[in-house]
Amino acid sequence: MLSSRQPAEGGPSKNELKKKAKAEEKEKKKAERAALQAAAAKQREDANIDFATEFYGKLPLNQSQTRPKRPRAQIASLSPNLEGQTVLLRARIQTSRAQGKYCFLNLRQRTDTVQAMVAVAEGKVSKQMVNWVAGLQDESIVLVEGTVRTPLQIIKSASVGNVEIHIDQIHLISGLDGRLPFSLEDASRGEAEYESPDFQFNKVLLDTRLNNRVVDLRTQTNQAVFKLQSAIGDLFREYLTGAGFMEIHSPKLGGAASESGASVFKVSYFKGDAFLAQSPQLAKQMAIAADFERVYEIGPVFRAENANTHRHLTEFIGLDLEMTIEEHYHEVMELLDGLFLSIFRGLREKYKKEIEVVGKQFPADEFKWREGPEGTLKMTFKEAAELLVEDGVPREVLDDINTENEKRLGRIVKAKYDTDYFIIDKFPMELRPFYTMADPEDPTLSNSYDFFMRGEEILSGAQRIHDPTLLSQKMREKGVNPDDMKAYVDAFRMGCAPHGGGGIGLERVLMLFLKLNNIRRASLFPRDPKRLDP
Amino acid sequence: MLSSRQPAEGGPSKNELKKKAKAEEKEKKKAERAALQAAAAKQREDANIDFATEFYGKLPLNQSQTRPKRPRAQIASLSPNLEGQTVLLRARIQTSRAQGKYCFLNLRQRTDTVQAMVAVAEGKVSKQMVNWVAGLQDESIVLVEGTVRTPLQIIKSASVGNVEIHIDQIHLISGLDGRLPFSLEDASRGEAEYESPDFQFNKVLLDTRLNNRVVDLRTQTNQAVFKLQSAIGDLFREYLTGAGFMEIHSPKLGGAASESGASVFKVSYFKGDAFLAQSPQLAKQMAIAADFERVYEIGPVFRAENANTHRHLTEFIGLDLEMTIEEHYHEVMELLDGLFLSIFRGLREKYKKEIEVVGKQFPADEFKWREGPEGTLKMTFKEAAELLVEDGVPREVLDDINTENEKRLGRIVKAKYDTDYFIIDKFPMELRPFYTMADPEDPTLSNSYDFFMRGEEILSGAQRIHDPTLLSQKMREKGVNPDDMKAYVDAFRMGCAPHGGGGIGLERVLMLFLKLNNIRRASLFPRDPKRLDP
Repeated sequence: MLSSRQPAEGGPSKNELKKKAKAEEKEKKKAERAALQAAAAKQREDANIDFATEFYGKLPLNQSQTRPKRPRAQIASLSPNLEGQTVLLRARIQTSRAQGKYCFLNLRQRTDTVQAMVAVAEGKVSKQMVNWVAGLQDESIVLVEGTVRTPLQIIKSASVGNVEIHIDQIHLISGLDGRLPFSLEDASRGEAEYESPDFQFNKVLLDTRLNNRVVDLRTQTNQAVFKLQSAIGDLFREYLTGAGFMEIHSPKLGGAASESGASVFKVSYFKGDAFLAQSPQLAKQMAIAADFERVYEIGPVFRAENANTHRHLTEFIGLDLEMTIEEHYHEVMELLDGLFLSIFRGLREKYKKEIEVVGKQFPADEFKWREGPEGTLKMTFKEAAELLVEDGVPREVLDDINTENEKRLGRIVKAKYDTDYFIIDKFPMELRPFYTMADPEDPTLSNSYDFFMRGEEILSGAQRIHDPTLLSQKMREKGVNPDDMKAYVDAFRMGCAPHGGGGIGLERVLMLFLKLNNIRRASLFPRDPKRLDP
Repeated sequence: MLSSRQPAEGGPSKNELKKKAKAEEKEKKKAERAALQAAAAKQREDANIDFATEFYGKLPLNQSQTRPKRPRAQIASLSPNLEGQTVLLRARIQTSRAQGKYCFLNLRQRTDTVQAMVAVAEGKVSKQMVNWVAGLQDESIVLVEGTVRTPLQIIKSASVGNVEIHIDQIHLISGLDGRLPFSLEDASRGEAEYESPDFQFNKVLLDTRLNNRVVDLRTQTNQAVFKLQSAIGDLFREYLTGAGFMEIHSPKLGGAASESGASVFKVSYFKGDAFLAQSPQLAKQMAIAADFERVYEIGPVFRAENANTHRHLTEFIGLDLEMTIEEHYHEVMELLDGLFLSIFRGLREKYKKEIEVVGKQFPADEFKWREGPEGTLKMTFKEAAELLVEDGVPREVLDDINTENEKRLGRIVKAKYDTDYFIIDKFPMELRPFYTMADPEDPTLSNSYDFFMRGEEILSGAQRIHDPTLLSQKMREKGVNPDDMKAYVDAFRMGCAPHGGGGIGLERVLMLFLKLNNIRRASLFPRDPKRLDP
């Protein structure tokens, strides 16, 4: 500057010099302000640039675009051993909680949860990223990449509480289209909580649950209930396979109404009609006449009864079996008893965790049965009636034992014998279907039995009539025309071994073992006279 | 006599004495004759008294009168080690052959047979007993007590040929009421025998068999076929349980016609209508939306198609599965491939005997698949079409591959790659149902596959659409109103993981593995448009 502004005459005056200095100072300050402003602007701009955009956001719809084969982690397998390691996992956001520069997520895979945290960190996690995470709806499915860390203290709200995940990347795989019908937290509250005077949450009614069954089924309770349902089927098959049984599949569509025409569903079948099997009874007996010796079937059975109770469904899963008898129908009854004991033991030994999970929402005395040399409590129908009479039930109503008295009997037996499981043998003939074999001494009694859990019937079985002439006679006595079930009666004309069996209601066993109180809770998508959806 | 007949005058004349002697001799001879006659009569009488009446005859109807708990033997367990021992067993008389004082029986329990013999023996087996046994109809069920003996030479007509049973007692448990519709011998003849120019037996037609299915099922072939059917189910479950799958049971009755309204059965449901599920497709996808992650179901599926072919049933058993996808639908396709290989290997390793038994009646080249590092043959639909074009099929008909060309493709593949099992991937979108996910690159293709055995489709599967908006759009494009399947579409609104699966026809796998040529042979009591009984 000095070199360019040469003095014109002699040199500048003092005033001039002062002015100049002032002006220069002014300009300098101005420049400094501008620089400061520019720096501030730059700073603001830097703050708005989201360096983390690649680390979060909605993924495109998975159409199998790529297959990097990166291993995915399971929450159940996380442990402090993995401290510091990066994991990649798909999970639902069960709940989330934003707190300034942090957002905490409770991530869920089926019955397992773990805490995850996303925190603003220069160059890694932006404020925008945290805000986006905080805005994700509960039940969204996310793909999370993060580092396993050991928290300062056990996280009680998570089932895997000894680790947490520090999120590096999080992407949305599947979001929600609308609002949740109820929160899973509300849907998971124990029955006891509902009854507390301090109860302040939304009670989720059974109908609401069933209308939104897909969400309801996601609770830890329901995940455990259906794992146990699957387990009962496995234990049933395992025992029977070991006892020389073979699985069969019998048709559900038939030309004849089975057992009793009153309660079967009619199907339009091309130009005619068909009926839905009310049980595999006829087919499994025919399998015996066909020499299969020991058969079981797991399949749907259909009942057109307009019964709107806690324990009736129009469609349920029958665990059915049929076997030849060498000498006496107690061979069958004892095998069925062995089967139940095996199922009970299997559940208690291998599924303790699931039973406990369900118990939190549906508190129940542990299911009890008798083990050891004295074995299962067995009594005749007459002895059962005597127990009820002793307890004050008028003898004259005891031609049959109704549902109410069944439950009462269950309580008497529990008090007297400390068991939730027992067998009643020798039912009166008039209470049983036409194919039931009569007692050899007393024709008013039959070679039939029911099994009970917590005072409710879960199995009905008997020795069957294997002689076609006697069978036809009994059908006529019960008002069934043998010609209407010709294929069934004919099956016994070419020789058939004495045989017996039983049918178990899968959902009932599950409901009563866990004390779920309503059979709809034991069926994935229950069907009753008023419900065909979802 | 002499003392009583005193001579009157002097004494008897010589003539008189001669006469007397003659008369005496005559009388003596007469007495001798009488004695001989009496002895003969006594002998005849002795012969008619049946000392064996307790050793044979018809038993009273088994009503569980007694329970002596006497062990019963199994034919399969008999061996020369038991020489001289007494065994008690229940069996059918497969055939019998009387020969003078002997009667030979071929006794059968399921697939096992043994020769038994009853022979007249003083004080043990009477002529009457042998005659009674010889008069028993084939297929009668008897209780036999006898001694195990080693025959002089192996009895070729029996499956257990190194022993025979010398019968001490034989009682009828269950006889026949009428004539057998066909002999089991005729029903068991190989297909090749039928075609022989020397064929002189009664050919038992499929319809006759199915009308009398209970007798037909008793052949060794059918006993083996259904043991293999049961085995496939076991192998299916075993593999999937090991892969973390859980069994579910979904309802067969639904308020909405599934997948396509054209081919479902309508059911009268109280005051309204219901429909029979055409597959567990909707329910199993909803189970995925409910976080069950990996599910399978074995159950009946119903198809109201009026298709009278060798490979269609109106009711069959679906082996279905559905699983979440982490990255790519090939995860599912590869799991399904692993499943099939495991089933094939399991059958070959554990059920060699049954496969051989069936092979005698239904000769077939052994089912072949590729093992080892190159693995299962996989090709795209386009590549499959190219193979057909190379083989002379006009390209213009190959928008779809029809049944005939499927079989042709099977033959081409067999000749070229020596495998009866392969996978076709990437079917054109227009051939697949609305819930199929499109290929990410080419929207005319889909992420879907079919599996083939001996040139026939046995599995169909795909990645599904897990986004409710896209799903609704695809439904409309295929002419389905999303409102008619609201519960299904809604299931995806609360978030759903990408997923895929497949459905296997149990009877088809069984039919094709064994080359039974008609699917009805692979179903216990088959149902088709014309058959609802037995």
